[in-house]
Amino acid sequence: MIYVTRREVFSASHRIFNPKLSDEENFRIYGKCSNPNGHGHNYILEVTVAGEVDENTGYLIDLKLLKEVIRSNVIEKLDHKNLNTDVDFLRNKIPTSENILIAIWEQLKDKIPFGKLYSIKLYETENNFVEYRGE
Amino acid sequence: MIYVTRREVFSASHRIFNPKLSDEENFRIYGKCSNPNGHGHNYILEVTVAGEVDENTGYLIDLKLLKEVIRSNVIEKLDHKNLNTDVDFLRNKIPTSENILIAIWEQLKDKIPFGKLYSIKLYETENNFVEYRGE
Amino acid sequence: MIYVTRREVFSASHRIFNPKLSDEENFRIYGKCSNPNGHGHNYILEVTVAGEVDENTGYLIDLKLLKEVIRSNVIEKLDHKNLNTDVDFLRNKIPTSENILIAIWEQLKDKIPFGKLYSIKLYETENNFVEYRGE
Amino acid sequence: MIYVTRREVFSASHRIFNPKLSDEENFRIYGKCSNPNGHGHNYILEVTVAGEVDENTGYLIDLKLLKEVIRSNVIEKLDHKNLNTDVDFLRNKIPTSENILIAIWEQLKDKIPFGKLYSIKLYETENNFVEYRGE
Amino acid sequence: MIYVTRREVFSASHRIFNPKLSDEENFRIYGKCSNPNGHGHNYILEVTVAGEVDENTGYLIDLKLLKEVIRSNVIEKLDHKNLNTDVDFLRNKIPTSENILIAIWEQLKDKIPFGKLYSIKLYETENNFVEYRGE
Amino acid sequence: MIYVTRREVFSASHRIFNPKLSDEENFRIYGKCSNPNGHGHNYILEVTVAGEVDENTGYLIDLKLLKEVIRSNVIEKLDHKNLNTDVDFLRNKIPTSENILIAIWEQLKDKIPFGKLYSIKLYETENNFVEYRGE
Repeated sequence: MIYVTRREVFSASHRIFNPKLSDEENFRIYGKCSNPNGHGHNYILEVTVAGEVDENTGYLIDLKLLKEVIRSNVIEKLDHKNLNTDVDFLRNKIPTSENILIAIWEQLKDKIPFGKLYSIKLYETENNFVEYRGE
Repeated sequence: MIYVTRREVFSASHRIFNPKLSDEENFRIYGKCSNPNGHGHNYILEVTVAGEVDENTGYLIDLKLLKEVIRSNVIEKLDHKNLNTDVDFLRNKIPTSENILIAIWEQLKDKIPFGKLYSIKLYETENNFVEYRGE
Repeated sequence: MIYVTRREVFSASHRIFNPKLSDEENFRIYGKCSNPNGHGHNYILEVTVAGEVDENTGYLIDLKLLKEVIRSNVIEKLDHKNLNTDVDFLRNKIPTSENILIAIWEQLKDKIPFGKLYSIKLYETENNFVEYRGE
Repeated sequence: MIYVTRREVFSASHRIFNPKLSDEENFRIYGKCSNPNGHGHNYILEVTVAGEVDENTGYLIDLKLLKEVIRSNVIEKLDHKNLNTDVDFLRNKIPTSENILIAIWEQLKDKIPFGKLYSIKLYETENNFVEYRGE
Repeated sequence: MIYVTRREVFSASHRIFNPKLSDEENFRIYGKCSNPNGHGHNYILEVTVAGEVDENTGYLIDLKLLKEVIRSNVIEKLDHKNLNTDVDFLRNKIPTSENILIAIWEQLKDKIPFGKLYSIKLYETENNFVEYRGE
Repeated sequence: MIYVTRREVFSASHRIFNPKLSDEENFRIYGKCSNPNGHGHNYILEVTVAGEVDENTGYLIDLKLLKEVIRSNVIEKLDHKNLNTDVDFLRNKIPTSENILIAIWEQLKDKIPFGKLYSIKLYETENNFVEYRGE
């Protein structure tokens, strides 16, 4: 069993707020993250696939292929986008790192052609990140 | 002459577009950076002050003081903000890295208590950055 | 189950030595790390909390809150301090990375308001780090 | 149980190709990685040892000692070398990151003097890395 | 006057040696860098253009355009290549960082569509880099 | 003219204080940096040499040689040391980054065997650094 990871980046904006609550309640819960006009980040996404090495190729999965899977299913939908309004798979979700990450898992989990999705990590800033393993 | 640099970060959203032009023309010039609902970045700002070392303190400028000057004049106005709508000193400017950086220079140039402002650098992503020296 | 991590830094000095042993024996075991007048590091601490996402907020734990817990219980006691003499919770411990990290775990384990402490990591240099999961 | 990690780097060249296949088939599978004259990387290797802290020293393992074990058994054999031709323990292997990493595990697994080898990680580029735990 | 920088990476192999000298003399001068079968690096290239900001666009130069200029003139010719044998503009040069960098300058200096080439930097490892300004 | 840079690291402790002043006055000027028992950092030193490329070698200066010059004249005297008490060339200096850097310049300026010393940079933390060019 080996673990292969690909790192990708995307730049997006969001506003953290719960539309069921007032602006005042949102500010009390989310502080400056609920700024009505939004803010943004350079997100770093790490996708880890687990499986066995193919003896013929020496690869678990060709990283060029894994890159394409991540880009077409995730990065192209998130990069240079507003996460509150522009992304079909984030519709009706509060775009916290936790919710974005779990939604990315759903996008990727059935699309990995070799091995299986093991873990994904999302860095919102250099100091804050989240990890999810589908459990 | 010595050069002292402080690094600060802020997270903001923007849309690159010229309001005098149509959405189509903006897209032709700016591509995905002109997405109508915006996108965002973790910006890194480096502020360099030049001057001589004070023999009594061994400092050109106390970095805690430089940090406070940068935070109160720049970071608090940009962090978790929308650069198109929320920042007084960016009003009526296209918020490219170049324009943001020159506007930051104007905010800081007369506020450095020891030495003088020598250079400022702004990283928009890990691959793209701009520098300005007030010349 | 999701894993949320906050990264914090602190700058501290220490001398690695066992007070039950002579300076010669300490030098034989610890080499230059036992320099009698000490040396120091910029330590990086990563604190990972595990738990479930709250549907109302979209957070496992608000990272501003986790930051405050780490700063008040750990960083304020270690930053700009001498780890041999200035820190109550390191009293009578040889301040190796291993011992510092386990002592930090004890400081934090009952103070996490949402989810539970899962893992902590301490980087002493860019080449050396330790991890502990309370097991 | 604590986990201690040492990071080392080495610079090496390789050509990814299967000598049983033609150049055309290799190019179809490996693309530019099968360039006949090779290419290269600055590899980063992280070696993690797991075990208990020795009460007398405060160490699981002295990192100077772990560094020496990694350098003499692995780094000296790989640094500034061609991974297809110059390394005894890679003979007859396709030098993908997966195969290099598993071969490094075999070199190290019986040479750790305190604790036991838990995990090794190999970064081929800033975007691509693999991990192996001997399972 | 503003300075705009784009960072690109490429992975290549090389052998540092002077073909006019014997292997022994090469080893005496270049040490392990003259290993006959070569070694390699992940090179980081930073290209800085200087000029004035266009009032209509807010750009000195669109970084997507600068990226294309660097990739088509430099990166595509160096990435996943052997610098001793595969690169027309390095023919008959000893592929030290200094010589590679000056050759890259010659490739780029007349191809910058806005502003002019000001400085280029090449990182061979995280500890070694060179800069050239065409002077 | 080309610029060649070598990066080195060292770990040291210090206390920022002026022995002519009382502890209270030191605390008023230097805050937590004047903690009587000291604190410490992982310092990063970048040394840049300027000169012309030797046609025979393709080097301005062999980086292995520059590394040795920096290590023997600077790093061995600072690494794992207390900068207030253990370093001959810092005697009677307040060990601020500015003063440490200028003292390092004096150590190196006549020891560079090819080219001449152009600039040195010292990172005290990831957010604070100083540069000096001997002017």
